[in-house]
Amino acid sequence: MDYFFYPKSVAIFGSFRKGSIAREILRNIVEGGFEGKIIPVNPKGGEVEVSGRRFIIKRKLDEFVDVSIIVIPAKLVPGLIRELKGLTKGAVVISAGFSEVGNVELEEELIRAAKESGIRIIGPNCAGIFGVHGKFFGSFEVRVNPGGLALISQSGAFGGAALAMGNEENVGFSAFVSYGNAADLDESDFLRYFADDENTKVIALYIEGVKDGRKFFEALKYATSKKPVIILKAGKSKSGAKAAQSHTGSLAGSYEIYQAAFKQANAIEVEEMEELFDAAKAFEMYKEAGSRVAVITNSGGPGVLATDKLEKLGLEIAQLSEDTVKKLREFLPPQCSTKNPIDLIADADYERYKRTIEIVCQDENVDSLLVICVPPIFIPSEEIARAIIEAKCDKPIIVNFMSGELVANGVKLLNDHDIKNFPTPERAAKALYWLSKRKS
Amino acid sequence: MDYFFYPKSVAIFGSFRKGSIAREILRNIVEGGFEGKIIPVNPKGGEVEVSGRRFIIKRKLDEFVDVSIIVIPAKLVPGLIRELKGLTKGAVVISAGFSEVGNVELEEELIRAAKESGIRIIGPNCAGIFGVHGKFFGSFEVRVNPGGLALISQSGAFGGAALAMGNEENVGFSAFVSYGNAADLDESDFLRYFADDENTKVIALYIEGVKDGRKFFEALKYATSKKPVIILKAGKSKSGAKAAQSHTGSLAGSYEIYQAAFKQANAIEVEEMEELFDAAKAFEMYKEAGSRVAVITNSGGPGVLATDKLEKLGLEIAQLSEDTVKKLREFLPPQCSTKNPIDLIADADYERYKRTIEIVCQDENVDSLLVICVPPIFIPSEEIARAIIEAKCDKPIIVNFMSGELVANGVKLLNDHDIKNFPTPERAAKALYWLSKRKS
Repeated sequence: MDYFFYPKSVAIFGSFRKGSIAREILRNIVEGGFEGKIIPVNPKGGEVEVSGRRFIIKRKLDEFVDVSIIVIPAKLVPGLIRELKGLTKGAVVISAGFSEVGNVELEEELIRAAKESGIRIIGPNCAGIFGVHGKFFGSFEVRVNPGGLALISQSGAFGGAALAMGNEENVGFSAFVSYGNAADLDESDFLRYFADDENTKVIALYIEGVKDGRKFFEALKYATSKKPVIILKAGKSKSGAKAAQSHTGSLAGSYEIYQAAFKQANAIEVEEMEELFDAAKAFEMYKEAGSRVAVITNSGGPGVLATDKLEKLGLEIAQLSEDTVKKLREFLPPQCSTKNPIDLIADADYERYKRTIEIVCQDENVDSLLVICVPPIFIPSEEIARAIIEAKCDKPIIVNFMSGELVANGVKLLNDHDIKNFPTPERAAKALYWLSKRKS
Repeated sequence: MDYFFYPKSVAIFGSFRKGSIAREILRNIVEGGFEGKIIPVNPKGGEVEVSGRRFIIKRKLDEFVDVSIIVIPAKLVPGLIRELKGLTKGAVVISAGFSEVGNVELEEELIRAAKESGIRIIGPNCAGIFGVHGKFFGSFEVRVNPGGLALISQSGAFGGAALAMGNEENVGFSAFVSYGNAADLDESDFLRYFADDENTKVIALYIEGVKDGRKFFEALKYATSKKPVIILKAGKSKSGAKAAQSHTGSLAGSYEIYQAAFKQANAIEVEEMEELFDAAKAFEMYKEAGSRVAVITNSGGPGVLATDKLEKLGLEIAQLSEDTVKKLREFLPPQCSTKNPIDLIADADYERYKRTIEIVCQDENVDSLLVICVPPIFIPSEEIARAIIEAKCDKPIIVNFMSGELVANGVKLLNDHDIKNFPTPERAAKALYWLSKRKS
């Protein structure tokens, strides 16, 4: 499926007048810096200018492209697919008006057309796709930064909101696919593809229901054998399942069965949208983490909150070795606590954080570190960020700097070094929990 | 205690050289727009200029002030308190070095000095206080916007981080108090005070442990009889309780006992720092809400996520009356779902949202509304924000606009009208859950 996510050429079929979806997609592809050929197509011809680039609108596609993006009236789609035989490998059908509104026959015709033409279909009724490392933004949704997360979403609107949230949360993406009605390619196909995609470090999946449970389970097992798969399942409750059914037409099915399948396949199920991104952030940084955590903080309260949450999630507050405690005692002020959570107290500076992290990191009883910083007025958060960046430590470090304006500079510096900040002690603790679930 | 939170005059005792805590507090008081008299005091005298205002530093306080803020070496504090007899009503002792470092005798001397002088004490070892509606920012922590939340924090660092997070989350504050060692005034006193403070709509309390359980329970019951009290208890786990003990010296005690007391007193216990603010935001807007919720959305997926969470939390997805469904059917496009969750689909505009909200609001089966918006590219989020603002509805409406840059303008407009946004469907659902807990 590289032709979808790393295409060398793309055709867009639709209206290119101002305020049209096809024009928005064209703009996104241009502004995203796509380096391949871009061909707008409309039977009426003409020209279109977006972001300072002018395109001749072809009346018909007359040369081969890797991928075609289709935003034309639903009833014309199967015909176009037949015309495209030999001219494209994959088609992303944005157009709505198929099975999701009861138009099952039209969707079946689309499937036949695709089979006869040897063209693979994403959609219909979808929001499009991004291949971020190929600089290909084949969707009207907000563009995102390159990174390790492939987001597969059954719901287009969820996908759009999630991409924008990803930007807020400083998540980097490898790809995005909104697969809509899944007439041809479905969640299982994408799971398998991203499992083998070298730019994807972690896969996140939003689903309401799947049509082929066996296929899904096998694909999920395959994907989790390669990398972490985070799942947010909607339609878990009775009312939610009913709503999902009327929304996508997919049977949400018994949640208990899904839950058991996720567990058995070693997928990471999250309960909330926010958790999806917290887990993704953690896995963009680390493959896994053991369960024995050392908490390092400059303020007692937040350290206690982290400790509470870690223990509640079944992680261990690591028992520091005597050697570690001795080494810490040698240079830490006497008011500091060298028990875990390690409290470096309010005036902790670069040196105190860096040395503590390095000493604790070498402790064989410690699998991972949770480093908290609430900067007091006279210690800039960048200083502590630098300590974390420069500390020599090969174990996972999850960071919680608080809050907002107080730590904006430190968080920016961390981000510049691919260290993501978790905004509360509890969310940082959960990040370690998800990492620990991948530890075999 | 009005002299603490609505003082007419303040004296600050400490060093005013650059980089000193007392100077930072002076700066905060000046920049916060305090309209009363401000008197810096230091035996060495001199002058200090902050934010363009020049002050003579008095060598001794020689006139009466409502409140004194003290940032001098710990061992000098009891003597100063004795000197202040008749010159001040309340003293906020920022200075550390008392019972929290084992210096119990000095703290006892402080308590005796306070009793003998008739001066009430906040602290020692605290981060100070804000009386936001009195424009009094007697702390070095970041200033906040006026609003309805009184934040009482045992931990100064937690308080500081929480204030900054409150700014991020657009929470308005009536007051902040970091009470440190609670040598004199403690959490129970503040609970009672803010219960009667007319600017305070909701009280949030961060505690690790309390010394006098009976007094606390009575104060808590009194406060919850007047307004919602949100509690974040730290030191719930075994390791967390141990850490809290070494941090504040307070016995965290058995969490089960606390939990039962919170419940019996009708307080709202939250589990995470983020929840503290989500609950506070909800209660800044509404006193309570019934349990039958109508979900209105323009995108299926997020509507399903909200529904799942509401049902999981024990709320009801309201059964809309036949009359409501009929009225909705009259003007909604046929693709819209008039079952709850009500899906207005992607092209929902001002009119569709506004009319739907007004019709649903009149349904006797509906207690509250959860309104979700994921704006598609051509509908600006401000338009939907305006629909929510202008809809005639006297039932609680909780809003979830997603996400980030996509809805920044709409969220700003909502904020300008004191409607707070909850960033995910699940967090919006939880807001309604907390509101429902206050419904008798």
